[in-house]
Amino acid sequence: MNMVDVILKKKAGGALSPEEIRAFARGAADGSIPDYQLAALLMAICFQGMNAQETACLTMEMMRSGGVVDLSEIDGVCVDKHSTGGVGDTTTLVLVPLAAACGAKVAKISGRGLGHTGGTLDKLESIPGCSVEKTQEQFVRQVQQIGCAVIGQTGDLCPADKALYALRDVTGTVGCVPLIASSIVSKKLASGAGAIVLDVKTGSGALMQTLEESIALARAMVDIGSQAGKPILALVTGMDQPLGTHVGNALEVKEAIDILAGRAGGDLLAVSLELGGRMLVAAGIARDVEDGKARMRGALESGAGLQKLGEMIAAQGGDARVCEDVALLPRAEHCIPVPAPRAGYVARMDTTAIGYCAQDLGAGRKTKTDAIDPAVGLVMDVRLGDYVEEGQPLATLHVNKPELAAGAVASMQAAIHIEEERPALPPLVYAAVSPTETIRY
Amino acid sequence: MNMVDVILKKKAGGALSPEEIRAFARGAADGSIPDYQLAALLMAICFQGMNAQETACLTMEMMRSGGVVDLSEIDGVCVDKHSTGGVGDTTTLVLVPLAAACGAKVAKISGRGLGHTGGTLDKLESIPGCSVEKTQEQFVRQVQQIGCAVIGQTGDLCPADKALYALRDVTGTVGCVPLIASSIVSKKLASGAGAIVLDVKTGSGALMQTLEESIALARAMVDIGSQAGKPILALVTGMDQPLGTHVGNALEVKEAIDILAGRAGGDLLAVSLELGGRMLVAAGIARDVEDGKARMRGALESGAGLQKLGEMIAAQGGDARVCEDVALLPRAEHCIPVPAPRAGYVARMDTTAIGYCAQDLGAGRKTKTDAIDPAVGLVMDVRLGDYVEEGQPLATLHVNKPELAAGAVASMQAAIHIEEERPALPPLVYAAVSPTETIRY
Repeated sequence: MNMVDVILKKKAGGALSPEEIRAFARGAADGSIPDYQLAALLMAICFQGMNAQETACLTMEMMRSGGVVDLSEIDGVCVDKHSTGGVGDTTTLVLVPLAAACGAKVAKISGRGLGHTGGTLDKLESIPGCSVEKTQEQFVRQVQQIGCAVIGQTGDLCPADKALYALRDVTGTVGCVPLIASSIVSKKLASGAGAIVLDVKTGSGALMQTLEESIALARAMVDIGSQAGKPILALVTGMDQPLGTHVGNALEVKEAIDILAGRAGGDLLAVSLELGGRMLVAAGIARDVEDGKARMRGALESGAGLQKLGEMIAAQGGDARVCEDVALLPRAEHCIPVPAPRAGYVARMDTTAIGYCAQDLGAGRKTKTDAIDPAVGLVMDVRLGDYVEEGQPLATLHVNKPELAAGAVASMQAAIHIEEERPALPPLVYAAVSPTETIRY
Repeated sequence: MNMVDVILKKKAGGALSPEEIRAFARGAADGSIPDYQLAALLMAICFQGMNAQETACLTMEMMRSGGVVDLSEIDGVCVDKHSTGGVGDTTTLVLVPLAAACGAKVAKISGRGLGHTGGTLDKLESIPGCSVEKTQEQFVRQVQQIGCAVIGQTGDLCPADKALYALRDVTGTVGCVPLIASSIVSKKLASGAGAIVLDVKTGSGALMQTLEESIALARAMVDIGSQAGKPILALVTGMDQPLGTHVGNALEVKEAIDILAGRAGGDLLAVSLELGGRMLVAAGIARDVEDGKARMRGALESGAGLQKLGEMIAAQGGDARVCEDVALLPRAEHCIPVPAPRAGYVARMDTTAIGYCAQDLGAGRKTKTDAIDPAVGLVMDVRLGDYVEEGQPLATLHVNKPELAAGAVASMQAAIHIEEERPALPPLVYAAVSPTETIRY
């Protein structure tokens, strides 16, 4: 197949055939198509798009480009959740134990933080002793025994996606619905998911900043999952401010434990219940979303969720006593308040900037090989719509390098916009997308 | 400079700054920008275009990316002509000697044939002994002494264009007006041209197949030349059939000699006079196009043009007796007619296919390293609008490998469309573009 002809066809707005998409995905995986031709085709796809058939075909070809995790030994449907990534967004650590406590099987392969968003693996590794490396056999056995596991990638999943993702990052072709959708769903399918719930973030801290793009991405992914024969549901949720109050690895583990222990709540819990309720539906455990949410709430109130988190931490070699005593988690040496520069209402937040602020303090990586500091980050003291007096703390920085504090305080003050008028509050859940309908709230 | 930001800016439809364009051109020339980022940016430019400032800036930066030929020792303005390439299009060998005989200085750096179009260097090399390799010093001296020289590239001109052109060829990004315009004009400026006349081909044998694209390309190039302070004029001429009757290297030299000797005429002469007349205007020798054409006609009728061609061939080491005796040129062993498969009017030609047919016989290269046969090619026996009887020859193949003849006959019959209705004849000159106006004919 002549790849220049494929590029020219897409450039002219044509739909690629299954054979052309297969050649594209395989050539990306095995390196036989040069990067410059892949880059040109990716850019042409950004302009001309891909229809539903093309997108589903690309997803399946990327999935087939490498190994597929075999979860068939696990009884019942393994249900997975994926978020497009946000700030202070640790729903995984809240909903995985709750869903497992409700009887779901959650065999979750997670990622690390990069850029302004955190990663579940980094959060888990902030728990003393906790490991995210397992063989596939150990992974399956843990899920079979306690109902859940959250680990890093095993084996060579989706090499085509890996090659294309790396290339998209350096060629300005990240923001493209069919490419994002096929990348996410191919990895979920390759990691063995039998049912999938998706959390597409929208707003100032999200990959997709407009609601319409976010809904289009949710729709594209639900359509792919349906074509692949998997139960799949998506929510579009707000990332107009950090979802939880805590941003940083050990800090987010602490917040998840506080929620599971009933000491905290808020938007992070609300979104976790919405997503978890749908996981129970997708897994065939709950009859509808309300039933699923009620079961999740029951597991929260009974303490079964917190107990399940402790079991999972212990099974992964970690010190489960953190569930009873969060003081065992790493803590930063200095707590530095970010004072409000003037009085008024918290009207808007540049959530991406807040994520980068935590990264700059050491909570995240600038490049894939940077080391991170599990203890550092920040805790938000205000939410959108709150009224603050001048000097009142907007957030508290948790810092190990005091020399970074002044810059971080200034960045946070710039990221949190205070205005005289009381703002309209954005919704938490913007839309729900199922194979048959899109509901906007 | 972060190249991803530059790509994203162009992808979003922004205009690149001079600094961004300089970084792009220099990074292409020195290899510091990876090919995949260049490819992504080229594709984004194909979709979003470049404005006149960006295109002129890219042209100047590509020119400055390497050496520039110094023609300052030559008295008067050196005038150059460039064609976007066609079939049976040997205007250079007709108009260069005529213009030089009229007092113009023509220091021309030409190219080789690739694809379906011929190249002047290959045609000159079909003359026994004739060389197209000169040092810059020899080149300048020849122009100073006899008024004209046509040679291959000396030194490292436009390395940025060389890198980008090679990449465009393999990434489906050839067909893009600002990229074509900057590529052509940068090379003309780097080769020292003081004034430029452009021949943009349109029709079935041209790079640009629609008239509007061809006019847009002519306009873009004239605007760049004007911004660079060079007298510049462009014609958009038809490539709906081979321009001359002869296609192939020695065959085209023979046709040029026949024209300069007054034994032939037709469209090739007509276009040569139109372009040459404008070269005399651009060089400041003629007061207007009609005056320029009259001077060119005078040099034709007096035999001064043919004499000048002989001087140029001799100065480049060739056997100038070919001007008196075309039988000294290489000749193919077999002449094979292409019979009309049925009676009717010659209504359309796939001129690109005719060019490839000559290439297949050995007149051109499939890859840059292929050897060519100077003697082979074809001579058209009909022009658009002619009535032919069944079996009457449409063209005559000049062949050294008889086993190729049957396929070539079939290709030619498929490329020349015969219909019952007398067709409307396309014009020879579609438009003339000057810095101040576009005239359509």
